[in-house]
Amino acid sequence: MPTETLDLRSSTRIETIDVTSLVRAAIRKSGVDGGIAVVFCPHTTAGVTIQENSDPRVRTDLSAQLSRLVPHDGAYVNADNNSDAHIKSSLIGASISLIVEGGKPVLGTWQAIYFCEFDGPRNRTLKIRVVPGA
Amino acid sequence: MPTETLDLRSSTRIETIDVTSLVRAAIRKSGVDGGIAVVFCPHTTAGVTIQENSDPRVRTDLSAQLSRLVPHDGAYVNADNNSDAHIKSSLIGASISLIVEGGKPVLGTWQAIYFCEFDGPRNRTLKIRVVPGA
Amino acid sequence: MPTETLDLRSSTRIETIDVTSLVRAAIRKSGVDGGIAVVFCPHTTAGVTIQENSDPRVRTDLSAQLSRLVPHDGAYVNADNNSDAHIKSSLIGASISLIVEGGKPVLGTWQAIYFCEFDGPRNRTLKIRVVPGA
Repeated sequence: MPTETLDLRSSTRIETIDVTSLVRAAIRKSGVDGGIAVVFCPHTTAGVTIQENSDPRVRTDLSAQLSRLVPHDGAYVNADNNSDAHIKSSLIGASISLIVEGGKPVLGTWQAIYFCEFDGPRNRTLKIRVVPGA
Repeated sequence: MPTETLDLRSSTRIETIDVTSLVRAAIRKSGVDGGIAVVFCPHTTAGVTIQENSDPRVRTDLSAQLSRLVPHDGAYVNADNNSDAHIKSSLIGASISLIVEGGKPVLGTWQAIYFCEFDGPRNRTLKIRVVPGA
Repeated sequence: MPTETLDLRSSTRIETIDVTSLVRAAIRKSGVDGGIAVVFCPHTTAGVTIQENSDPRVRTDLSAQLSRLVPHDGAYVNADNNSDAHIKSSLIGASISLIVEGGKPVLGTWQAIYFCEFDGPRNRTLKIRVVPGA
């Protein structure tokens, strides 16, 4: 199975987009029953994280605290006015590794997978690849 | 080989638990000689990291600085009083990928694997899956 | 194929070293056409991240903001005068997972892979292992 590509569209500068069902579908499509899946963000002003799937205020707090730590109007030398987005991308990370069992990602009860937009709105993609275990 | 589950018990709100020997045992049990292992934390108020195995003050400093950056009593909208734990979880990350050689994780001389509790004390689990190389 | 080891040499205390071409060569050498690659940093005062390959000021801003958040002369209890480097290592992370297609890492147009030195100058290594997909 080749790499699966998800097409996403962010609607604001900073946004978390729940991609759990899309990742589940890509893993199911791979036909792999047990193994490892990598979810990879091919952008340098976005990232991917795992967070609570229930109360959306958790993600509000995550985005707000990240912006307190790495403000949009900080003392940056890069002239593109998006250094904060690059720095947040490295803090959150561009990829996550998942365990696959029974054709599904192993996730805790409260976990969902989020694409983190830090410099939207933009068209974005997310890449997924599954490798089988023994 | 199925996914291995480690049962852990944290004893304070913020704690780093050395799981290196448990991860080593799970990798050995998989029977895989060479490949990749994913260590996955199925909780949204905890994480997993690699840090120094020698001076425990390094982990004291890590926990303290994380709490300076993301204070427990910060200006959060989530009412569960644990937004700091969620944010720290996304900063540290829910999974790490290890290289396996000779049935063992490839780790530097000073490296150990730590489960990071940010909202304990709780019963926790950690998941481990190994996939073989060519 | 065994794990590939890259030998690196940092020249200052804090530095980002572009290792993209070295990682590409290691993946090509593995002979794996499609699968997953893990790039692992076996040090606790360094890390590995993916960032923009174009304007070097992005990495200047990343390093500077990390040092604002985790200052070298912070209130640390560890006596080795490098607690900031350990903490940055856990924030950036010790490993990244890449997707491999056609014998190459799947990277966005603007992405490069950087070894992040936080306590140099030192001789360092970086480990790479590729596992094939179905």
